[in-house]
Amino acid sequence: MKASLLVIHGPNLNLLGSREPEIYGTSTLPLINEQISKRASQLGLDVHCVQTNHEGKIVDLLQKAEHDCKAVILNPAAYTHTSIAIRDAIAAISIPVIEIHLSQISKREPFRHTSLTAPVCTGMISGFGAHGYLLAVEAAALLIK
Amino acid sequence: MKASLLVIHGPNLNLLGSREPEIYGTSTLPLINEQISKRASQLGLDVHCVQTNHEGKIVDLLQKAEHDCKAVILNPAAYTHTSIAIRDAIAAISIPVIEIHLSQISKREPFRHTSLTAPVCTGMISGFGAHGYLLAVEAAALLIK
Amino acid sequence: MKASLLVIHGPNLNLLGSREPEIYGTSTLPLINEQISKRASQLGLDVHCVQTNHEGKIVDLLQKAEHDCKAVILNPAAYTHTSIAIRDAIAAISIPVIEIHLSQISKREPFRHTSLTAPVCTGMISGFGAHGYLLAVEAAALLIK
Amino acid sequence: MKASLLVIHGPNLNLLGSREPEIYGTSTLPLINEQISKRASQLGLDVHCVQTNHEGKIVDLLQKAEHDCKAVILNPAAYTHTSIAIRDAIAAISIPVIEIHLSQISKREPFRHTSLTAPVCTGMISGFGAHGYLLAVEAAALLIK
Amino acid sequence: MKASLLVIHGPNLNLLGSREPEIYGTSTLPLINEQISKRASQLGLDVHCVQTNHEGKIVDLLQKAEHDCKAVILNPAAYTHTSIAIRDAIAAISIPVIEIHLSQISKREPFRHTSLTAPVCTGMISGFGAHGYLLAVEAAALLIK
Amino acid sequence: MKASLLVIHGPNLNLLGSREPEIYGTSTLPLINEQISKRASQLGLDVHCVQTNHEGKIVDLLQKAEHDCKAVILNPAAYTHTSIAIRDAIAAISIPVIEIHLSQISKREPFRHTSLTAPVCTGMISGFGAHGYLLAVEAAALLIK
Amino acid sequence: MKASLLVIHGPNLNLLGSREPEIYGTSTLPLINEQISKRASQLGLDVHCVQTNHEGKIVDLLQKAEHDCKAVILNPAAYTHTSIAIRDAIAAISIPVIEIHLSQISKREPFRHTSLTAPVCTGMISGFGAHGYLLAVEAAALLIK
Amino acid sequence: MKASLLVIHGPNLNLLGSREPEIYGTSTLPLINEQISKRASQLGLDVHCVQTNHEGKIVDLLQKAEHDCKAVILNPAAYTHTSIAIRDAIAAISIPVIEIHLSQISKREPFRHTSLTAPVCTGMISGFGAHGYLLAVEAAALLIK
Amino acid sequence: MKASLLVIHGPNLNLLGSREPEIYGTSTLPLINEQISKRASQLGLDVHCVQTNHEGKIVDLLQKAEHDCKAVILNPAAYTHTSIAIRDAIAAISIPVIEIHLSQISKREPFRHTSLTAPVCTGMISGFGAHGYLLAVEAAALLIK
Amino acid sequence: MKASLLVIHGPNLNLLGSREPEIYGTSTLPLINEQISKRASQLGLDVHCVQTNHEGKIVDLLQKAEHDCKAVILNPAAYTHTSIAIRDAIAAISIPVIEIHLSQISKREPFRHTSLTAPVCTGMISGFGAHGYLLAVEAAALLIK
Amino acid sequence: MKASLLVIHGPNLNLLGSREPEIYGTSTLPLINEQISKRASQLGLDVHCVQTNHEGKIVDLLQKAEHDCKAVILNPAAYTHTSIAIRDAIAAISIPVIEIHLSQISKREPFRHTSLTAPVCTGMISGFGAHGYLLAVEAAALLIK
Amino acid sequence: MKASLLVIHGPNLNLLGSREPEIYGTSTLPLINEQISKRASQLGLDVHCVQTNHEGKIVDLLQKAEHDCKAVILNPAAYTHTSIAIRDAIAAISIPVIEIHLSQISKREPFRHTSLTAPVCTGMISGFGAHGYLLAVEAAALLIK
Repeated sequence: MKASLLVIHGPNLNLLGSREPEIYGTSTLPLINEQISKRASQLGLDVHCVQTNHEGKIVDLLQKAEHDCKAVILNPAAYTHTSIAIRDAIAAISIPVIEIHLSQISKREPFRHTSLTAPVCTGMISGFGAHGYLLAVEAAALLIK
Repeated sequence: MKASLLVIHGPNLNLLGSREPEIYGTSTLPLINEQISKRASQLGLDVHCVQTNHEGKIVDLLQKAEHDCKAVILNPAAYTHTSIAIRDAIAAISIPVIEIHLSQISKREPFRHTSLTAPVCTGMISGFGAHGYLLAVEAAALLIK
Repeated sequence: MKASLLVIHGPNLNLLGSREPEIYGTSTLPLINEQISKRASQLGLDVHCVQTNHEGKIVDLLQKAEHDCKAVILNPAAYTHTSIAIRDAIAAISIPVIEIHLSQISKREPFRHTSLTAPVCTGMISGFGAHGYLLAVEAAALLIK
Repeated sequence: MKASLLVIHGPNLNLLGSREPEIYGTSTLPLINEQISKRASQLGLDVHCVQTNHEGKIVDLLQKAEHDCKAVILNPAAYTHTSIAIRDAIAAISIPVIEIHLSQISKREPFRHTSLTAPVCTGMISGFGAHGYLLAVEAAALLIK
Repeated sequence: MKASLLVIHGPNLNLLGSREPEIYGTSTLPLINEQISKRASQLGLDVHCVQTNHEGKIVDLLQKAEHDCKAVILNPAAYTHTSIAIRDAIAAISIPVIEIHLSQISKREPFRHTSLTAPVCTGMISGFGAHGYLLAVEAAALLIK
Repeated sequence: MKASLLVIHGPNLNLLGSREPEIYGTSTLPLINEQISKRASQLGLDVHCVQTNHEGKIVDLLQKAEHDCKAVILNPAAYTHTSIAIRDAIAAISIPVIEIHLSQISKREPFRHTSLTAPVCTGMISGFGAHGYLLAVEAAALLIK
Repeated sequence: MKASLLVIHGPNLNLLGSREPEIYGTSTLPLINEQISKRASQLGLDVHCVQTNHEGKIVDLLQKAEHDCKAVILNPAAYTHTSIAIRDAIAAISIPVIEIHLSQISKREPFRHTSLTAPVCTGMISGFGAHGYLLAVEAAALLIK
Repeated sequence: MKASLLVIHGPNLNLLGSREPEIYGTSTLPLINEQISKRASQLGLDVHCVQTNHEGKIVDLLQKAEHDCKAVILNPAAYTHTSIAIRDAIAAISIPVIEIHLSQISKREPFRHTSLTAPVCTGMISGFGAHGYLLAVEAAALLIK
Repeated sequence: MKASLLVIHGPNLNLLGSREPEIYGTSTLPLINEQISKRASQLGLDVHCVQTNHEGKIVDLLQKAEHDCKAVILNPAAYTHTSIAIRDAIAAISIPVIEIHLSQISKREPFRHTSLTAPVCTGMISGFGAHGYLLAVEAAALLIK
Repeated sequence: MKASLLVIHGPNLNLLGSREPEIYGTSTLPLINEQISKRASQLGLDVHCVQTNHEGKIVDLLQKAEHDCKAVILNPAAYTHTSIAIRDAIAAISIPVIEIHLSQISKREPFRHTSLTAPVCTGMISGFGAHGYLLAVEAAALLIK
Repeated sequence: MKASLLVIHGPNLNLLGSREPEIYGTSTLPLINEQISKRASQLGLDVHCVQTNHEGKIVDLLQKAEHDCKAVILNPAAYTHTSIAIRDAIAAISIPVIEIHLSQISKREPFRHTSLTAPVCTGMISGFGAHGYLLAVEAAALLIK
Repeated sequence: MKASLLVIHGPNLNLLGSREPEIYGTSTLPLINEQISKRASQLGLDVHCVQTNHEGKIVDLLQKAEHDCKAVILNPAAYTHTSIAIRDAIAAISIPVIEIHLSQISKREPFRHTSLTAPVCTGMISGFGAHGYLLAVEAAALLIK
């Protein structure tokens, strides 16, 4: 059976917990993925979580998700602001994609204020730290129904 | 007893349901407020909902909320992009403020792409239509705890 | 019986006649309103004229006009360039709104060159001083028919 | 006896009726000119209407108008946004020039939002389709008096 | 007898003492108003102090001040950077208006670096905290003479 | 019988062969026109070639082409970057217009990087020197079919 | 024997036929590649077609092409606007590279209006849909000779 | 015998003496041309003076000048800031072109601060009123030698 | 005994009284210095006044002031907008520096709207003409205490 | 007897002849000064030539020139683009100042395209190399008369 | 034993020696790596050199370096100007990273003037060609101590 | 005997050790100069170190260095971002100039992100604190050879 929900963690998110904890919190990625799985299963959803530092890999994953999943939760991290390729992939697939950020990106450097991906995502959740993923799972459950 | 959660609907949101439904959906504000109250009470929260077209009134409400509430859910609508006064009020109070938008503002006109309020809010939820308010109630419940 | 035509004069227009007469002319607002009423009644139209310095009040008036009037003549004055809230109110109502300016705003400071409201108004008349209101009444009569 | 009012239709306006009718309406230029003449003669004005696709020709016409006419109604069309030469000609002559546009130019592409000619025209009328010319004739009659 | 000097405190200044004290200092507004009154009376001036969060209210106050006062001290706070309506009111009245800021606004976020009101005020005093009001009272005394 | 294909060479292209040959090559315009005719006739197309330095003339030619031709190949040269009038003419006619440039315009001065005409043309071919005209003839043949 | 012509399809072009067909047409990539091969072989050229979503892979391919091919046809898709690495690779190799786009990129979002790769390509063909590849093959044949 | 020096007066310069004399002085064009001829003949030069309001005409004149003249004095007036076509014509011919302006263009509106033609002219003289033409004749004499 | 207060007048301020008196007033620098000394001595302060046209000299003076003075009053004049060196000197010393301008710089040319020095000064006083220096002396007295 | 004409050569002009001769020519400064003196004396003018690398020194010289000279010829070189202090000095004195550049500054780097001094100079001559100084002397002679 | 110093060469640097030698010099990458190793071993450092064209690969390498190395020398090449992902990786690791460029990037195209990585690197060395790597090794030795 | 290496320290660098030590370190300038001399003499170089706050003085020094030195190490400090005069002096002399900064200027305020001098220097070293000077001496030794 295939996963019904794909969670993609973008570049450097594998460092969560050690990288600038005053911005990103102290939870590690395995811990966050565990919480995501728990909440998803409460809502009757399978979930598959991936982390990659490669822009092209995220494009590959999004393209494949159209056939394998019902929704995607995507934290594009640094690629939020630079990747038209990821934007095009989101626009090209027909399932909902939810953009998530741990921090409020508008609080940070100016080059992080513009999201190239937001205009083609269904919705965005930002600033709630690791809790944001759980809200995103819930949003995904609503959108899949 | 005072409300523990304040929901502020900014300018023109009283027209929900009739105004540009292809962007804002067909739910009316009273219906949305009802759903908010229901979800809030499930999570053990009192809620008070207000709508106003006046920037200064939103500033007044935010200032008073600090004493009367534990969190604010704010849809600043048009004032998102023009009001430094609301931004300053959010920054001046110590309770969490969650910014919410029905649509993905980055999909719309360029002058709606910048949020003056986002950098001082705890978190932001956008693009999920009226459902977004329910996610915001849930986020508020997490933050209050 | 309700007024069929609403004329809204924005901030500082109550000072007409005394304020920078080299730009705005020497006619006072009561005199202008009188001329508007006369021309309107010649064209078979009721008219109601209001002046306010409050952005939120203009939003309130526009929202109510949808039910009470057939057209609006609006001089947004300073709010022309800063109010997305008024723009949204104009876009949200289905009756025609005619934007009017006494002076040619493009002759003045750069921050007055952009009109946030013009793109959602039916038409614009500017530069003809107080006479512009009479042209606007005539335009309104055409649009109502 | 010379014409007291000159109407100049800029580039591509000869295509009115067939060109993008959802923007410019279905009236043809000869029909519009006929309506202009009728309204002008009601107000005791001679009128002469010209159409040209040539920027330099519009400059020539404006220069000559100073001697032959009492006012000009000018729809500079595409040259609104690019012609300093036409702007200079308007500024150089002492009779009033009224700028007119069929559509609200601020609703269209960004490069149509700036009018180089507006700051040197007496007034502007836009967004009322072919009716705008009749309002302009009326405005001209007021200015000539 | 009418007040000869009007002091207008803009949005969020009622929170002085509690709001971001590292920027705005620890003096409360009632204390500051008391000091203003004392210095004003030493210089033979009546003073009236008002605080409001409403842009339109500041416009109303400025318009009325022309008849009731000899000078205005204005801290437009957030509206410094967004209100053309207040700018127009200042330009429309003939008494001197002194702009004051507690902090050096050029030390803060870029959107606070431009003052829309400064070009129409007589003078500006900024960066001296609550003491700045006393310097402004003195300046007003000089200008009234 | 009328020409089925119109080729318009914009300003200064009559100087080809002598003007900056390191950018534009050493072929003269008569030679290029001859090659165009040959290739067109191989593809069963009549062709008519015109060169003009006048913006208004290009507008006239485009307007007339709608009735006389099935497609246009246009090298707007300098007017590529400045002529909204030509852009409007292209948009106003219903036959395909192919934009061609001898050089890669993005290799040159910044003011040559934006093409006002490209967004309303069917396609663009650039950088292949005089050969580009032959590719354009072929493209036109495809579009006419 | 090595391929004499390399065709590189950039990110998301593997979705052709299903992705936004109103922009990109209904031809699938295998069909297009077949047509390219056919035309190439008519012109006496071997051809090798590759699709990848990875920026670094396109750089690798271009570097290798210098030794294995006589020309490259490149549709950089999303990377057109963001990849200096691909630009540098094109500039670093000595064989001609032809840039191709299915749509007119200047008709789309502003961030697609600038091509980082165009200034270092020999020529560009855009807006002719899948036919553009055949024109590019022809152009390549001319350049190789 | 052909003129050795061509003087081209751009759009609206035929109005000299009557048009905004506080900027352009009170000398008329025939008077200025007479002075130019006198000075030229003192320096052993034939001179031919032309005025036109047509951009394309200036391009035509410059192209012909290459064969008929030894130098050109050009006052492009409004076309200074908008005409790439004239710029290209100047760059395409091999004789020196001297740009002249009656006023200091940098003292005027911002859109007059950039000269598209200056970078391809040999030299520029501005701000000396009608006297500037005489300095330009002298400069031309030096360059021809 | 060393001066406790240093007043630095920047470039061209030695011309006060004769230079553009409609902007800078008719007081000469010696007269202003006299008034400064008088007010300073009333407040128990020694004062030393210097004028220089040299940016480097102002840097030298500021560096030395740290050891010799308790506060500086600085009118950087033209260097306000161009000198990072003066800004760095102010930031490098630990005594308060008060910036003063005779006119409201925001009323003047755009290049005078930004102050490079303001963000590192303690406070700013502008627009009160020569009286501003006396307010600055008073402010200095407060800061020294 | 004092010099009636002051020539100020700005920074690095003492290197003329050796510095980037392809831009600035091979004449040395002493040779140029000699030619200036000769032409000036032919026109009945005393001349004094100075070179300095110091911005403040140029301000000092301009201030003094008002009393000692009838006109100034100024080549501000690098300070053309950065010195508001020199601009203010030119504006503050009442004798004519002629700006001169050896090269066409608009042909060079973008930061050399704007002249801060030009808007306050009487006229400008550029692009004629060392000959430009002789034209400037002649212009000065005309202005002094 | 692990390498104490990691040298990462970004995209297209494997072409060194053949690619645009007038910019990058004639040394090949293997030769440069050899020199680096030699100098490093003189300073008692192990060194490992890698080249890759993949942005994601550089992120992977930086993340691993934190555990395996004491310092990184990074030439991000084209990714200097576009990769926030690499910037984030540098910021996320605690060992010093030294940025190096063979050429002075500020001498090249404007899009190469901004370095996204520089603000998070310890230091930068540029413009010394292949020698720069040796200076960087020395700098690394100092930082490791 | 003349110094073979000139080290120029720009404005405010004489304050090193006391000025903002968290940015610039605690070493004083005499100490740094001593270290420079020591390293230089190890490499067989004479060195002369100068500090000045005057832009014009730096220009003078650079001009003289051409005759007296073999290379220059320049820390332009604040003038890095504002002095075209220093840039021109560097470009005018034929010996190598190495730019050095103690801090990473790209980490600081935006107005410090652009270096006017870098494009004409041979190389740049920044971010290594006082150690950077020693790397620069080494680089100079390499360049002189």
